[in-house]
Amino acid sequence: MATTLGSSRAQQIRSCLAGNNLRAWIAWRPDELLMLSGYFPSWGASLMIYFADAEPLLFVPQLEPHEHIPAGLRVRQYPWGDLKCVDPYSILVAEVARELGVAGLRADQVGMNSSCARSSLPMNAAEQIPMPEGFAAQLTSLSAGGNTRAIASFAELYLRKTPQEVQSIRLANQVANIGLQAFSENSQPGVSEAEVAASVEAAIHRQIGRDGIFHSRGWAMVQSGPNSAEGGQFNRSTGRRLENGDLVLLELATCVNGYWSDLSRTAAIGSLQPEVAEIFALARDAQQAAIDGVGPGVSAGQVDALARNKIAAHGLSGCFTHHTGHHVGFRYHDPGFLIFPGESEKFEAGMVLTIEPGVYVPERRCGARIEDNVLVTESGHEVLSRITGSSHSDNAQAGETRS
Amino acid sequence: MATTLGSSRAQQIRSCLAGNNLRAWIAWRPDELLMLSGYFPSWGASLMIYFADAEPLLFVPQLEPHEHIPAGLRVRQYPWGDLKCVDPYSILVAEVARELGVAGLRADQVGMNSSCARSSLPMNAAEQIPMPEGFAAQLTSLSAGGNTRAIASFAELYLRKTPQEVQSIRLANQVANIGLQAFSENSQPGVSEAEVAASVEAAIHRQIGRDGIFHSRGWAMVQSGPNSAEGGQFNRSTGRRLENGDLVLLELATCVNGYWSDLSRTAAIGSLQPEVAEIFALARDAQQAAIDGVGPGVSAGQVDALARNKIAAHGLSGCFTHHTGHHVGFRYHDPGFLIFPGESEKFEAGMVLTIEPGVYVPERRCGARIEDNVLVTESGHEVLSRITGSSHSDNAQAGETRS
Repeated sequence: MATTLGSSRAQQIRSCLAGNNLRAWIAWRPDELLMLSGYFPSWGASLMIYFADAEPLLFVPQLEPHEHIPAGLRVRQYPWGDLKCVDPYSILVAEVARELGVAGLRADQVGMNSSCARSSLPMNAAEQIPMPEGFAAQLTSLSAGGNTRAIASFAELYLRKTPQEVQSIRLANQVANIGLQAFSENSQPGVSEAEVAASVEAAIHRQIGRDGIFHSRGWAMVQSGPNSAEGGQFNRSTGRRLENGDLVLLELATCVNGYWSDLSRTAAIGSLQPEVAEIFALARDAQQAAIDGVGPGVSAGQVDALARNKIAAHGLSGCFTHHTGHHVGFRYHDPGFLIFPGESEKFEAGMVLTIEPGVYVPERRCGARIEDNVLVTESGHEVLSRITGSSHSDNAQAGETRS
Repeated sequence: MATTLGSSRAQQIRSCLAGNNLRAWIAWRPDELLMLSGYFPSWGASLMIYFADAEPLLFVPQLEPHEHIPAGLRVRQYPWGDLKCVDPYSILVAEVARELGVAGLRADQVGMNSSCARSSLPMNAAEQIPMPEGFAAQLTSLSAGGNTRAIASFAELYLRKTPQEVQSIRLANQVANIGLQAFSENSQPGVSEAEVAASVEAAIHRQIGRDGIFHSRGWAMVQSGPNSAEGGQFNRSTGRRLENGDLVLLELATCVNGYWSDLSRTAAIGSLQPEVAEIFALARDAQQAAIDGVGPGVSAGQVDALARNKIAAHGLSGCFTHHTGHHVGFRYHDPGFLIFPGESEKFEAGMVLTIEPGVYVPERRCGARIEDNVLVTESGHEVLSRITGSSHSDNAQAGETRS
């Protein structure tokens, strides 16, 4: 099932290496391994040397399962998990040094990003990757570790997804959509926020084993009634039970086989007070206005303004305090420019972004946000997260393309 | 609800600072903030200066919820989340520098561990903490960042839990026990591994809002039948459906209000073949032998041998390939010595450890592991994860103490 990424990704990486006068890149963060090769680590203790002139070399713990490692990688085990091995990391570093030596590479020809910031999690998602104290420093001595220009160039690689990567992000959104159905079905008076969130995550988790899905995990956070007014500050679920007249805000991160969807939905429980209904409708209208504006050559600031102006027209500009969106796919939050007031960076075909304006009004004891994942196409855009024929029509609309 | 930790923790920290000729410690990893002060970050972008001679100073994003920040901390916001602030981290670093200056501290009097290895996750658990590229380096210039002796001393602080921390770990185990009940109830023929795992996680998640629980999340991985034989290499759930005659292995990490439980259970589906029943019974016997041996002054190697010898007596020593246990509580895997062949480190009252020998036999298409969390007491030990009166008696036994 697992296959190598299209040649377009490999070409981008090799071009990035050449543009930075590098002949190899070292990576171990899960999202970076995924972006470079389509490999999603299980334990998180894997490391790759991506060579300019040779097949990538992937070091995995001897405990790592192999069946989802893409073809086209040279794979080597190191004794992580060997009861008799006291320091597998030093062995790994020595092996990396040896391979760089065999390839005739000097440290200044080898790049690396040593930061773990915002990095995604491996399959074993309950803690951060187990690379120990001092590991990054050891590797840094083998590389031009602090080359900020090269690090920025490699972060740029996250922005334009290949067709195969788009398919993987599409699958993550299809699975997330099953979670959205659970959200609609369980958002009932008397059910607690945490109970709704648990049902969403369970629906997503249960998809493992279907349709090529070997990993599927959701992180759902539900805020209802007055708690939804806090949804622009933070997301979390409490034990509050849903009541008639509530808005209920779902924030949902979904990871399928390593690829991410980032969605929000707002549901209405029973009939809304007019001042709450206004917020509910406004969140939809602002989001639709922003989505309608997405296309190649359009600036992020222009799209941000489309949403922000809708909200300002209701005299509520102070109630939308965050950005309109960000890149998504290899992580819950990919690196790259934000959809932000005044941002001049322009959309290009292959980018996948969230569009997620929100309106949060403590005085009305409510908040609302609708968030979708939008692919920029050659001719406009495609909303990856609105699944045609979905049964949860309350909060989703049919898939659409703009040309 | 949130209260300061007992004076014993503060005394340990101050003594650790004095022993390393330090007058302050900088921390931002979620488990380290929890260990130092009982504070569990929501966003993960919080930072603390722990002073030898003054109340700790906690910097939190302006978006951080405040109601679960313990009393006794000075709390200051910085503009993380402000739409108009381009670089909140530089503001944070400048504030930290200013505070250290006001306190008259030189860089060599300030300690820090810049590694993120194995660090736990914040409440917002879908990605690693958002401290960016270069942040650790900026802080390092304010501190004796690479002081390995001080870093080791602070890691030592994780090992002995205060009575209040033990109560929090006990609560995590009580919540995990609700997940174990879901495991027992859902381990039925025809149910998939992923469906069982999803039910366990949902049962844990639904506890938010009860009995002082503001955060509750489980990570469950289920391996059944032949897949359970891989349980000594890695844990994951697949779409395989449970069958009569299977052993079913559950690995379960649970985080409640920041504190962790780490459990495993093995269930039997229907009647077992004799060669499978032997493995099932042996895993229990080996674990019980190890638990029976835990007490203050006993070495980790002695306890490891108790389990390992039981398994060797069945001619299966090659089928138990991992350690017998590790410290637990502030993380899924706390730092500190392992329960490992030949390990001479001795248990002390206040330590909390997993006891988790396993037996994995591909030739018999099965594997089994029982894992509990055991507190070392002055007189022996207490198993925190066996809940008296539990209804899932199949896999748990009544709580016990040894004296």
